Amino acid sequence: MARPAELSEELAFAHLLADEAGTIARRYFRRKLVVDQKPDLSPVTVADREIEARLRGLIRARYADHGILGEEQGRDGADREYVWVLDPIDGTKSFIAGVPLFGTLIALLHRGLPVFGLVDHPVLHERWVGQQPGGATYNGAPCRTSGCERLADAIVMTTSPDAYGPEDLVRFSRVSLQARLRRFGGDCYMYALLASGHVDAVLGAKLEPYDFMPMVALVQSAGGVISDWQGRTLNIDHYDGRVLVSATAKLHAQLLEQLNLPS
Amino acid sequence: MARPAELSEELAFAHLLADEAGTIARRYFRRKLVVDQKPDLSPVTVADREIEARLRGLIRARYADHGILGEEQGRDGADREYVWVLDPIDGTKSFIAGVPLFGTLIALLHRGLPVFGLVDHPVLHERWVGQQPGGATYNGAPCRTSGCERLADAIVMTTSPDAYGPEDLVRFSRVSLQARLRRFGGDCYMYALLASGHVDAVLGAKLEPYDFMPMVALVQSAGGVISDWQGRTLNIDHYDGRVLVSATAKLHAQLLEQLNLPS
Repeated sequence: MARPAELSEELAFAHLLADEAGTIARRYFRRKLVVDQKPDLSPVTVADREIEARLRGLIRARYADHGILGEEQGRDGADREYVWVLDPIDGTKSFIAGVPLFGTLIALLHRGLPVFGLVDHPVLHERWVGQQPGGATYNGAPCRTSGCERLADAIVMTTSPDAYGPEDLVRFSRVSLQARLRRFGGDCYMYALLASGHVDAVLGAKLEPYDFMPMVALVQSAGGVISDWQGRTLNIDHYDGRVLVSATAKLHAQLLEQLNLPS
Repeated sequence: MARPAELSEELAFAHLLADEAGTIARRYFRRKLVVDQKPDLSPVTVADREIEARLRGLIRARYADHGILGEEQGRDGADREYVWVLDPIDGTKSFIAGVPLFGTLIALLHRGLPVFGLVDHPVLHERWVGQQPGGATYNGAPCRTSGCERLADAIVMTTSPDAYGPEDLVRFSRVSLQARLRRFGGDCYMYALLASGHVDAVLGAKLEPYDFMPMVALVQSAGGVISDWQGRTLNIDHYDGRVLVSATAKLHAQLLEQLNLPS
């Protein structure tokens, strides 16, 4: 296991990385940019690349023996004892449309298990951090998931119906239409709001490890539950892109049951 | 016609109303509240009612001969020469879920025509104002819609697929799936982003005059076009709840054509 002293130094370093990312993100936000098309057609901004290159450089200079897994430049030593997971701008569509809910995601894994996860919203000046053990914080103050235990009482969020294939859209709809309220749009912000108890469940699909690994430590340390749609633990090597996050274990069990009803 | 001096006094007063609304909204945001259900099942917060009561009181004290049309307390002298249109919290679902994109909307109408429209986001400290003549501003600086003229190049936003009945959802989907990018979630924030050139088109349905009238002066004074889905002018007495907003007249014409293709 990692020593606490070592972790605390690395978490302080993660805060510096987020500060650095935020400075770059704010410089490009709402400025006219050339927007490229990636093979999957999701837009990529210049800011995305510049942030990841900067964070990779800082990590390599400080922790030469650590691995890195990032959205833009992929895996570099992802089988090492410590691995940094980076999503420079989660919510690229939000970013492009001038919506400030995008964020920078940073996680540190130790032998594949999340040590901490950090979600930073540079335009909103809101930062969530979760570490295990240690709990979750919102701008430095402790935060916790809600006590919601029933889907009928739950506020459920997802980024877009477009995130689902036809079959998953049916499953998502079956669940979310039973909720007290469902709301679209939000990317990483939804998970952070769940960690603070404002949102009770979040569903996602077609996600990559850099999208969900930073959420694992945050959600769990805030008292919530995170898994794929079959209840399996999320990790960087085996995943199908589906993510389910709930404020409580009881709500999670109900959501899993409803997601997996025979059709 | 209204005299410019008079208008300028009333616009200054509208800023004060928005300041007042923001103070109340920020006090309730992310605090646990009892959430009521209105007949249409949209959640209403205590903040909503408190803001509208406060703004109505201020308007009555200052402009006793003006009418008021508000979300919570309906119409009071809506046939008078001057009518204030108020939506204390547009984006109640966002508010409840802790998403700071909700806003306060204020418009002044003169013989039914919008004199100015104000959109304020109290948590984000972002305020848009449009007046005719006079132009549109974002936090005091001039702003303008984008020059986007083709749907294939457009960033299109809507709050939720749940805002549409089945037939309108088909029409919305036909249009939005041809766009460069479509994004969900945003309420009044989407219209404001359009006025600043970040978003190129916004579609809405099941909207009420307090939702759309404040957008008319803002969008038009920023260079954009706003109508219902048949291209008709929006007003407080005849409307079907559908709203279409575009950055340019050319884009608007294409959107109207696509919305109204024979099915």
